[in-house]
Amino acid sequence: MYFASDNTSGVPERILEALGRANDGFSPGYGTDPLMDALRQRLREVFEAPDAEVFLVATGTAANALALATLTPPWGAIYCHPLAHIEVDECGAPEFYTSGAKLVHVPGENGKIDPDALADTLTQSGRGVVHNVQPGALSLTNLTECGTLYRADEIAALSSVAKAHGLPVHLDGARFANALVAEGCSPAELSWRAGVEALALGGTKNGLMGVEAVILFDPSRAWEFQLRRKRAGHLWSKHRFLSAQVLAWLENGFWLELAEHANHMAARLEDGLSDLAPLVYPRQGNMLFVRLSEEQHFKLQAAGAQFFSSKGGQSASSPAPDGITARLVCSWNTTHEDVDAFLRALKNP
Amino acid sequence: MYFASDNTSGVPERILEALGRANDGFSPGYGTDPLMDALRQRLREVFEAPDAEVFLVATGTAANALALATLTPPWGAIYCHPLAHIEVDECGAPEFYTSGAKLVHVPGENGKIDPDALADTLTQSGRGVVHNVQPGALSLTNLTECGTLYRADEIAALSSVAKAHGLPVHLDGARFANALVAEGCSPAELSWRAGVEALALGGTKNGLMGVEAVILFDPSRAWEFQLRRKRAGHLWSKHRFLSAQVLAWLENGFWLELAEHANHMAARLEDGLSDLAPLVYPRQGNMLFVRLSEEQHFKLQAAGAQFFSSKGGQSASSPAPDGITARLVCSWNTTHEDVDAFLRALKNP
Amino acid sequence: MYFASDNTSGVPERILEALGRANDGFSPGYGTDPLMDALRQRLREVFEAPDAEVFLVATGTAANALALATLTPPWGAIYCHPLAHIEVDECGAPEFYTSGAKLVHVPGENGKIDPDALADTLTQSGRGVVHNVQPGALSLTNLTECGTLYRADEIAALSSVAKAHGLPVHLDGARFANALVAEGCSPAELSWRAGVEALALGGTKNGLMGVEAVILFDPSRAWEFQLRRKRAGHLWSKHRFLSAQVLAWLENGFWLELAEHANHMAARLEDGLSDLAPLVYPRQGNMLFVRLSEEQHFKLQAAGAQFFSSKGGQSASSPAPDGITARLVCSWNTTHEDVDAFLRALKNP
Amino acid sequence: MYFASDNTSGVPERILEALGRANDGFSPGYGTDPLMDALRQRLREVFEAPDAEVFLVATGTAANALALATLTPPWGAIYCHPLAHIEVDECGAPEFYTSGAKLVHVPGENGKIDPDALADTLTQSGRGVVHNVQPGALSLTNLTECGTLYRADEIAALSSVAKAHGLPVHLDGARFANALVAEGCSPAELSWRAGVEALALGGTKNGLMGVEAVILFDPSRAWEFQLRRKRAGHLWSKHRFLSAQVLAWLENGFWLELAEHANHMAARLEDGLSDLAPLVYPRQGNMLFVRLSEEQHFKLQAAGAQFFSSKGGQSASSPAPDGITARLVCSWNTTHEDVDAFLRALKNP
Repeated sequence: MYFASDNTSGVPERILEALGRANDGFSPGYGTDPLMDALRQRLREVFEAPDAEVFLVATGTAANALALATLTPPWGAIYCHPLAHIEVDECGAPEFYTSGAKLVHVPGENGKIDPDALADTLTQSGRGVVHNVQPGALSLTNLTECGTLYRADEIAALSSVAKAHGLPVHLDGARFANALVAEGCSPAELSWRAGVEALALGGTKNGLMGVEAVILFDPSRAWEFQLRRKRAGHLWSKHRFLSAQVLAWLENGFWLELAEHANHMAARLEDGLSDLAPLVYPRQGNMLFVRLSEEQHFKLQAAGAQFFSSKGGQSASSPAPDGITARLVCSWNTTHEDVDAFLRALKNP
Repeated sequence: MYFASDNTSGVPERILEALGRANDGFSPGYGTDPLMDALRQRLREVFEAPDAEVFLVATGTAANALALATLTPPWGAIYCHPLAHIEVDECGAPEFYTSGAKLVHVPGENGKIDPDALADTLTQSGRGVVHNVQPGALSLTNLTECGTLYRADEIAALSSVAKAHGLPVHLDGARFANALVAEGCSPAELSWRAGVEALALGGTKNGLMGVEAVILFDPSRAWEFQLRRKRAGHLWSKHRFLSAQVLAWLENGFWLELAEHANHMAARLEDGLSDLAPLVYPRQGNMLFVRLSEEQHFKLQAAGAQFFSSKGGQSASSPAPDGITARLVCSWNTTHEDVDAFLRALKNP
Repeated sequence: MYFASDNTSGVPERILEALGRANDGFSPGYGTDPLMDALRQRLREVFEAPDAEVFLVATGTAANALALATLTPPWGAIYCHPLAHIEVDECGAPEFYTSGAKLVHVPGENGKIDPDALADTLTQSGRGVVHNVQPGALSLTNLTECGTLYRADEIAALSSVAKAHGLPVHLDGARFANALVAEGCSPAELSWRAGVEALALGGTKNGLMGVEAVILFDPSRAWEFQLRRKRAGHLWSKHRFLSAQVLAWLENGFWLELAEHANHMAARLEDGLSDLAPLVYPRQGNMLFVRLSEEQHFKLQAAGAQFFSSKGGQSASSPAPDGITARLVCSWNTTHEDVDAFLRALKNP
Repeated sequence: MYFASDNTSGVPERILEALGRANDGFSPGYGTDPLMDALRQRLREVFEAPDAEVFLVATGTAANALALATLTPPWGAIYCHPLAHIEVDECGAPEFYTSGAKLVHVPGENGKIDPDALADTLTQSGRGVVHNVQPGALSLTNLTECGTLYRADEIAALSSVAKAHGLPVHLDGARFANALVAEGCSPAELSWRAGVEALALGGTKNGLMGVEAVILFDPSRAWEFQLRRKRAGHLWSKHRFLSAQVLAWLENGFWLELAEHANHMAARLEDGLSDLAPLVYPRQGNMLFVRLSEEQHFKLQAAGAQFFSSKGGQSASSPAPDGITARLVCSWNTTHEDVDAFLRALKNP
């Protein structure tokens, strides 16, 4: 019963096999491997973006921070939700990579930035006033940290506000595949067609060992990105081992299958929980937040279920004076059996 | 005939198998995996350093830059050889990670810092003068960028000068295993017993996919290191895939076998070259620099040999107004056949 | 009718005279001038802090940012009020100087941090969790940006919370003298006795040309501070011209006289406004925030009064859906005549 | 007998008077003062550069570091002479302000960069290679740290090499006025007409309290400069006190008179020294380096002469195994009497 995170799973056999194939012989390094050429081409097709530039790194924090540093000057403001991963869980990586930009909170329900709140914030941003940090970038996360989904039109609406103020848009897509299958649209629709300039496309949480693809739909700063990546120690010499994983993951829509399965398992959890415990946020992808009583929490722990929980709620917009909020994340390899065992443990008298 | 770099090789089958074994089931992330506990213990034994702290990252640039940032303040001077990898080949990573420290050159023959030059430099370092950057750390590389070896007593002599000026010592050990088998001493003798506080122990160039271990023999700044690693996006969620590789690599001295083989192939190359072309630096590990005539160079290229070369020599101390300097690197999977084919191509009339 | 800021005033004649005297002859530079020795001694006496170290810089932003960088690591959180000058008006200087620390908001009424909110925030700070920025420093401002006063016991209460979590305390004292005469206590009571480690003692807003003294009551990081100051270009070669101003300012309590006058003029304004317009925050020093009708605002502008104003209120805790909030700042050279002219303009039918 | 530095002098009476005049009444702050408008206009005339942007800061280190940060990305190389002030005497300020750029030495005789050495260095700069820092800017100093002069055509020749490699040119003009009167050309000829994009025009060493003007002949990055200045705490609120000094200094060529006098005193020293001690570098402005015997050095010290000295020579290009090298700097207020007393002390049997 492992629901702690989608990054506690390993990788599908196919990924190991791809590593094995890639291992054969000598290969040029540092991103000049033929597999990377193939992958670049493949991602351009998948995203219908023939000019996009693509770069691989091993962690989501690196992908986000490098992308943001490429979009934002040191005196820039990065607008994000107060619960955003870049604000809460990266130990200041964006500040480090940007040499001191400021993350500015824009609120909204269910972990999603409210477009009106964004417009208000940008109207009062102090652009052109030397005493204030200057608008730098909008950063969205999809799926959000609350497990909720921005639909393509919602991203477009936020991008539109951002662009009216001259801001580029970054998308933390650690769970982009889960969002994509939940929304049922094309990769292009959920990214550049909705106004995203830089996408951190997450592989690690969806079945890879530690690979994320940064896709720059605006390739004009690609060289700067490459220098920043190298300088940060994120350019792999044996780069083929990154390329190979992403290629295998994309093949025949395998990445979408993996995400589909994770979402499906979360839906099954949601169904089973419906009579037992209320959800804190709508379930839209592979992650649920559920309110438990102390007793329920105890029963699950006693049964050995693995998940993160916190006293009360997560945010001001969802106060939970009593009880416990549990985060349940399903993965590409979560089984029906695990889900059902979890539900049984909860019902157990 | 691949002699371009030891990082154009893949990994031994055993490493792939270790990944397969590590892939089984769920595992806690971010360095809390049981494999990391085992690895920490193993490295402490291998280095006879029960208090050492050990951290894994994916690249040598990250390992070096994070270690140096932990040792050196932003206003610090990092003393290194003018040909050091951190100076020449990391796109300013140490400057980025330290928030602006200065790399100060200390010369010496064959890529090795001269102890007297170090003493002179430190005597004139401006310690205590507010206008000058302040002594921060000594950084050594073993094997050096010239492929030469610091013996344990040579490292101890340099460390002794450094410590007399209050400086900690960092060792870039991208080819530490090659140095170790060349020197024939123990890991402890070539590191902390010789005065090294922080070792970047290279795995990638000796048979891993992209893993380096930073060993802090002085563990007092281990927490700072961890925060710096996280903040830089170098803390892996699926960390077990790093741990597993290093564990398998250390098992039964496998890492030393791999390095021994690479060194042995380089010795074979050296032998074969003795009548054909002069070495630029003494060959001591798995890397040679050899002076070629234009004709020789042409013959090798025509035969498809892969290696880096430059017009003339590499450094002021080895001027080579005529000819071409070729760098030949042997790897864990370089074959006798490759070496012999290279030599034949050179002799070919 | 100049109420825009206390930094639109010039300097008292005595300060010019002090510059004239200091100008005589040659003097060693970079803070080694005899005047600085005298000033250090004088400030130690004034603050009853014989071990304190004292450094001069030309701006408040530099004083704050350098002090904070000395107290806080790059991965640190600086806890401050959402309206703090360091958060709102310094274009990210603390982030620049600290190499990327994060300013974390702690709310409270009237521009003052609430001790319970601080305790709550620190309890949830994520200390020891590698994914989170780590508690770095508490930063207070006295007088606050709302013109309100922290009494000595209030600072002590906040410091006590901070110290229980191992945090040092920084005080932005751009208007420290105004706070001091408002509170009527000793400099020591309003600083180190209340738990402050680093004070940015403002001279510029209280009659100097551009001089602020950073007082480190904990001198252990004084050398680091000096290196940071030099490296930031804030160490003056002709330092005597800074020392001389502060010495003359301190002489015979002149600095307190200047602040007393400014506070007194603000009190006169407050009295005159009592029937005309409501205050937004309690008036405690030399700065008032007053709610004006559109008509009142127009009359004042027509009469040539200089001040900053904003539609509505300043903060969430003081919403003002209608009307205009005007900030009125009195200075050491604000005259009775100016105050009375302002009030007449407002009453003018 | 004060020859330690031109920054141990005070300021001419006229500068104090200008401060007195500027002190009158209230003035808007932060560079929006009417005096700054006048000064901007005046400097544009003096430099025949109607589009140039001008900004004031208090120190030369700030002027240089801010200008360099505006010209150079964090992964940039700044090419400078090994003896350059930015390399030797600013405690890493350029590295701090650029967030980690690298200062790369280009040698040359007498403290002046050799154009051929520059061309060689740039040809091997690694532009386009991701492992190398990328060419960022050329930084010159005039007068140099050796007291020598770049003539306008020499600057043009170096700029020409820089521009052929796409590099902007920064000029550290701490002693620009001394260079200007020595060369006898116009300010434009010694700056933008010779290819300089950013000039740090020194006032402090030529009679001001602590004011330097940064002149951006390419105004396209002026807003970035302003944000960097603010963020660094170098934007003065009572900015008029900076503007007033530079205005008075420029009036009727006063700045050139001051520099002329300093150079003239140095020429007098040179004349007097001709039979007594050899110069290390040609004397071209207001600074001399002279080789003294131990006995001569002793006599000068006994007579109370103030100057910096070092055992042996300053650089590899001027080895001085025996004796002492003394640096003698004349200032706007050095007197004939001082010069003659110095020479007498030296001759004194």
